[in-house]
Amino acid sequence: MTLPLAKDFSHLFSDETNARKPSPLKTCIHLFQDPNIIFLGGGLPLSDYFPWDNVDADTPAPPFTKGIGYPITDLSTDSISKLTIHKNDKPHEGDIPLARSLQYGFSQGQPELLDFLREHTKLIHDIKYQDWDIIATAGNTNAWESTLRVFCNRGDVILAEAHSFSSCLAAAQAQGITTFPIPIDDNGIIPEKLEKILDNWTPGAPKPKLLYTIPTGQNPTGTSLPAHRMEEIYRIAQKHDFLIVEDAPYYFLQMDKYVKDVNERTALRSQVKKQTHEEFLKALDKTFLSCDNDGRVIRLDSFSKVLAPGTRLGWITGCKSILKSFVSLHEMTIQAPSGMIQSFVSGTLHRWGQNGYLDWLQGLRHEYTLKRDNAIDALHEFLPKSDAFVINPPIAGMFFTVNIDASAHPEFKTKYESDPAKVENAIYEKVIQYGVLIVPGAWFITEGETNPPQPAESKQVDNPNEIFFRGTYAAVSAEKLREGLKRLGECLYEEFQIAK
Amino acid sequence: MTLPLAKDFSHLFSDETNARKPSPLKTCIHLFQDPNIIFLGGGLPLSDYFPWDNVDADTPAPPFTKGIGYPITDLSTDSISKLTIHKNDKPHEGDIPLARSLQYGFSQGQPELLDFLREHTKLIHDIKYQDWDIIATAGNTNAWESTLRVFCNRGDVILAEAHSFSSCLAAAQAQGITTFPIPIDDNGIIPEKLEKILDNWTPGAPKPKLLYTIPTGQNPTGTSLPAHRMEEIYRIAQKHDFLIVEDAPYYFLQMDKYVKDVNERTALRSQVKKQTHEEFLKALDKTFLSCDNDGRVIRLDSFSKVLAPGTRLGWITGCKSILKSFVSLHEMTIQAPSGMIQSFVSGTLHRWGQNGYLDWLQGLRHEYTLKRDNAIDALHEFLPKSDAFVINPPIAGMFFTVNIDASAHPEFKTKYESDPAKVENAIYEKVIQYGVLIVPGAWFITEGETNPPQPAESKQVDNPNEIFFRGTYAAVSAEKLREGLKRLGECLYEEFQIAK
Repeated sequence: MTLPLAKDFSHLFSDETNARKPSPLKTCIHLFQDPNIIFLGGGLPLSDYFPWDNVDADTPAPPFTKGIGYPITDLSTDSISKLTIHKNDKPHEGDIPLARSLQYGFSQGQPELLDFLREHTKLIHDIKYQDWDIIATAGNTNAWESTLRVFCNRGDVILAEAHSFSSCLAAAQAQGITTFPIPIDDNGIIPEKLEKILDNWTPGAPKPKLLYTIPTGQNPTGTSLPAHRMEEIYRIAQKHDFLIVEDAPYYFLQMDKYVKDVNERTALRSQVKKQTHEEFLKALDKTFLSCDNDGRVIRLDSFSKVLAPGTRLGWITGCKSILKSFVSLHEMTIQAPSGMIQSFVSGTLHRWGQNGYLDWLQGLRHEYTLKRDNAIDALHEFLPKSDAFVINPPIAGMFFTVNIDASAHPEFKTKYESDPAKVENAIYEKVIQYGVLIVPGAWFITEGETNPPQPAESKQVDNPNEIFFRGTYAAVSAEKLREGLKRLGECLYEEFQIAK
Repeated sequence: MTLPLAKDFSHLFSDETNARKPSPLKTCIHLFQDPNIIFLGGGLPLSDYFPWDNVDADTPAPPFTKGIGYPITDLSTDSISKLTIHKNDKPHEGDIPLARSLQYGFSQGQPELLDFLREHTKLIHDIKYQDWDIIATAGNTNAWESTLRVFCNRGDVILAEAHSFSSCLAAAQAQGITTFPIPIDDNGIIPEKLEKILDNWTPGAPKPKLLYTIPTGQNPTGTSLPAHRMEEIYRIAQKHDFLIVEDAPYYFLQMDKYVKDVNERTALRSQVKKQTHEEFLKALDKTFLSCDNDGRVIRLDSFSKVLAPGTRLGWITGCKSILKSFVSLHEMTIQAPSGMIQSFVSGTLHRWGQNGYLDWLQGLRHEYTLKRDNAIDALHEFLPKSDAFVINPPIAGMFFTVNIDASAHPEFKTKYESDPAKVENAIYEKVIQYGVLIVPGAWFITEGETNPPQPAESKQVDNPNEIFFRGTYAAVSAEKLREGLKRLGECLYEEFQIAK
């Protein structure tokens, strides 16, 4: 079956994208690689002057039997996959020689890296149109900011989950773009509410161009969007002609449901650990990319959570006509992700192979499942046993949340003047005094115009006194995590004057 | 003597900068390093999962006696400075362990790298105010685009040399910013003309916020701005309250004057090669940064031409209050330059030391001087000997230009309808057929509003039929360069129907 071509979304481009003329110098840089042309066209220094060669690194080798977090320096030689990067030659097929990765050019990303990622994409997603592709990025923060530049003008509106990643919201707000909150529940965006909002959109008001969403392991709520909701939301995107920006940094941090009973859990975990690659792939969440017939999904992937944040390396998957505008913007901004890390990542991934990379991702899943289990166990152990404290075990991502009924605070009406936000801030500060940092939910509120006709739809108001905190089990070891949550519990017992 | 503090330039900030709220998550990330706090605040993965350790690389060792371009693989062990980067420890003082460089944080850049660059800055510049600092960037292309975002709104005006780097002009134009051309001659910007333009600026029209300039080794003209002009331009910037953006990628590619006589030249070159560091430093061009009492200079430096373009690593020097706005923007865009390359560059530079780095820069100067000499020699040898062809030997940078009187073309009035632009384009295409790529001057024209009162001031009109081409001696070896310029000469003989 021949897949259809992507639709044309150029009517959604920003004034900036429409005005952007390609730098004429970029029109000839490909001739640098042409053996028949002596290239006196651009300021490309000779690679003779690049001061590095014979770059060696130790990387763990698949199937990572000791676990992906086992100290590399303690691995035996046969568990190490030696990475070697040369300046001029290419001893392994996925290698990007430094003479190329450290040179100008290849704004889309180095071919070896893109090849690996295209193959990976085919394993994970089932894209339903022909002309999709991949470009390398400097990570999702930059990719999202670029997405705003590519599509939005001042005064435009975008949609986002009612609680979302504050840095991404702040980027939009600084650009004069309104972030319109979409109601969410324990399973993420509520399609019916989204549709109602858009069906009743104020006539004449600018319609939203983008939906920014973190469907898997949402930040901050830790929820994941079920497949049927995804399909519904995609249908609404088609109906109201907006693009879906699927921010997917946590996609491979999917876990099994939290099981409180330790015996039952142990049995389940060991079963999951033995999953084949096929079983692993089959169990992964559906993606918006796999719903996409039109080319209206822009998926942002990142190595930040999968390899390391400081790689500042990620990729966008989308239709070619849209990606072209991103590359034109990149030519005037980052030019390309840093070449050294492209050589490292491509060299590592090609040595591991697609299967080895799946081993790594399964290993990562295992680690985060243990971390999540530890966190939720500790929360159950240390938090006050009261209906005022609700623990939300996530099934993906790095974050758990604890909801708190602020009105249960003994000084709610007096000291805090019945204002839950004041309780929230007081707890945040008090918890730091106990030597723990967790983040108040208020930091993640999607603020913006709540389109007049349906203000009630755009806020979660089940309990107006409910506040929440986001914590992570990612950043510290199991022991420290436990200690931190113990301190959190002590602080809450004290603050809410609950007897142990 | 106590230096003054920088002035306040916040009145020049863009709407975007004024609206930018720091992401609240960034306000607490420093607590990640606090030993008393258990950090459950942000999605920072454990460095245990970063898949690289024991990174080794061969780098040449100062004083680079065999030349900076000598193949690293052919160097003897004592001419190699072995770079080793560990995940967790720091065997050498300038090392940035991978556990830190590959983690989130340090948006300003890694401290070890910044320390080295601050020391380097003090060697090169004589900044005349107290509160300057440095931030790391993802290279000058990105730094310039960020500068536009920090200061300019749609409809704003900036100043630039009448011929300038097309990518930088294109970035401004896409943002709806007008690029106003300033007349230049063989020594760069003509201060009198700049002042006249500003003194007669249309009342009520938006005044320029920035001057974008490449004072040393200007692109495309290859000119360098003399110190007295720099001081004059700085005074005009104070008078008309604009900032000077000093784009300095070619700063260390300064050369001695081209000397046609080979004996005289050889003597001179060997003398320069023996320069002490003090002599080298003293001979360097003055910089706008060294004129700066107010903090109105934003200097963009890059490792692209000095180490390698694919590092995508550079730095901005300026006053702290302005740099703060860049860091806030970076937190929503690149976050920080890629960590792996920060570890490589910092490790390399600290092993070399400040003196070793000066050795490298002197070596680079030597290489580019030879390359420039080769190019100009070949142009004299191969270009038609006619007043219609003028060779301009540069004293800095990567580029030479050849001016051509288009009216000397035998078909100027007929085939080309007396339009020099048509001749220029025809030559560009013809030269490619001869197997050489050089770039037409038209690609570098600063186009924009020529503020009505003084249109004549803003164009170079000494000879309206004069066109030029920019070539580089950077990108190819000496033999290829010679062959390329030979082909160029053959093409021009043929095209202009000149008998050899």
